[in-house]
Amino acid sequence: MPNPPIGFAHGLTLAAASRIAEVTLAKGRELGLAPLTVVVLDQAAQPKALLREDGASLLRPEIAMGKAFGAMALGFGGRELARRSAKMPGFMNAFSDLCGGRAVPVPGGVLVRDASGTILGAVGVSGDASDKDEVCAVAGIEAAGLVADTGDPE
Amino acid sequence: MPNPPIGFAHGLTLAAASRIAEVTLAKGRELGLAPLTVVVLDQAAQPKALLREDGASLLRPEIAMGKAFGAMALGFGGRELARRSAKMPGFMNAFSDLCGGRAVPVPGGVLVRDASGTILGAVGVSGDASDKDEVCAVAGIEAAGLVADTGDPE
Amino acid sequence: MPNPPIGFAHGLTLAAASRIAEVTLAKGRELGLAPLTVVVLDQAAQPKALLREDGASLLRPEIAMGKAFGAMALGFGGRELARRSAKMPGFMNAFSDLCGGRAVPVPGGVLVRDASGTILGAVGVSGDASDKDEVCAVAGIEAAGLVADTGDPE
Amino acid sequence: MPNPPIGFAHGLTLAAASRIAEVTLAKGRELGLAPLTVVVLDQAAQPKALLREDGASLLRPEIAMGKAFGAMALGFGGRELARRSAKMPGFMNAFSDLCGGRAVPVPGGVLVRDASGTILGAVGVSGDASDKDEVCAVAGIEAAGLVADTGDPE
Repeated sequence: MPNPPIGFAHGLTLAAASRIAEVTLAKGRELGLAPLTVVVLDQAAQPKALLREDGASLLRPEIAMGKAFGAMALGFGGRELARRSAKMPGFMNAFSDLCGGRAVPVPGGVLVRDASGTILGAVGVSGDASDKDEVCAVAGIEAAGLVADTGDPE
Repeated sequence: MPNPPIGFAHGLTLAAASRIAEVTLAKGRELGLAPLTVVVLDQAAQPKALLREDGASLLRPEIAMGKAFGAMALGFGGRELARRSAKMPGFMNAFSDLCGGRAVPVPGGVLVRDASGTILGAVGVSGDASDKDEVCAVAGIEAAGLVADTGDPE
Repeated sequence: MPNPPIGFAHGLTLAAASRIAEVTLAKGRELGLAPLTVVVLDQAAQPKALLREDGASLLRPEIAMGKAFGAMALGFGGRELARRSAKMPGFMNAFSDLCGGRAVPVPGGVLVRDASGTILGAVGVSGDASDKDEVCAVAGIEAAGLVADTGDPE
Repeated sequence: MPNPPIGFAHGLTLAAASRIAEVTLAKGRELGLAPLTVVVLDQAAQPKALLREDGASLLRPEIAMGKAFGAMALGFGGRELARRSAKMPGFMNAFSDLCGGRAVPVPGGVLVRDASGTILGAVGVSGDASDKDEVCAVAGIEAAGLVADTGDPE
């Protein structure tokens, strides 16, 4: 697709999103993790790519999407959302209701930034422990030459 | 618009709502806050004006609207809603369900009153810490010659 | 705001969205139309600016948002959505259910493109007859130096 | 992944689903179609793979998913769903409500069968005219060595 079609702009291309998704799963295989589901959302929090490994349980796509959606909705990686969930349960419960339960505020939701810091989208991974899910998302994002923001101060 | 159109009554004019929204954002710039979203609701809790700064994250309009809607729904500023959330979580959870998750009970939702105390609408601001959001809303309301009610006793 | 904050990218700035909204309403006043509501959505179909004139009826914000949302959802201006509604009612009814009733497929929803044809967002206007609403949206978009796509072939 | 993880059964493997999705998009490029979105659902109507091309409009993932979901929900390809929509609008409207608007009864939703006729899942494609979307889905399914059922008698 050398000439991108005229239409919606795309900070995050399908090529980048596919690369992120594939490397995320490869990292999970390398680490011997449980079957993973990965979703890559664009700036509109709409999916560019989703892959679910064989053996993954039923709601893994919704959970992976929820991690990435939460990050996009508030503009923080999942670790910051988890901290706010602990410190501000009233707000986070209201936020969950506000978005119809679409946000999952735990690690494994990772913002995708370009070199200048602009948010291009977010990756959500679900299947193993949240911090292991996150390791895979970070590997995927970095393999695409982009910057992962987990919600922890650097 | 010298001759107002005949139609629905308006305690809160578009002129006042626009002034509130613009000064709210200007205050945020003056204080160096994160990108803000401001919404001004009328007596029916319907928007008169909304402005979202560049760089604000995805769900900020819903959160700003939720703060203002919560204030209109129960007739208290966001600080009182936050207190009730802490003291009466059963009621506030039921209330959240009752209104389909549309209310966000935290500071930054500020009632707009006229000099006689009548509620004309509410302002919701989201983007930075809740108390800083609130400072901007109050500045906006006062710049329009109206009275801000944050939910704290004066 | 000379240095845009680092965060979410913005094809459509608040400055452009505000200009669009203000000129849209000014056009309505010039033409003597009924009170208008205008909303400007970005690439994520989230509001950048909304203004509702005094006297506008209750659900005008939702209708204006629905016109703009429908255009963004399918990537066509409201005139094309109206044609499809007439020709493909089964699909358009399913689409309405799919998006929870958020799309209003009539003129007055106008895509905002840049000079290269990229879609930056959409404008929705409601209050008078749909084709008059549309005239105002087009005036607003052009005043911001952008290209209006009503869904009619040029 | 030589040793598949123990977990949920998978008639449709990720390997097959990825192949279907990639060939579907390649077919669209070969035919010069508008940007496509493809989703591959398994027997539980949960996504195994989703890819959205650059330039695709906002709701294409939901529409593609709706085509595939409708096919899985009733066990017919999209062409049969479209016929029933025309002949039995009362039932199809009730069905749409029943599933919360998740089904889109038009061509481009194609069942995936194995050689024995067992349904393994469904593919949904959205972006161009429905019958062109369908051509791409069929190409993808056949490239994976599986049988496409569009809802038309063979």
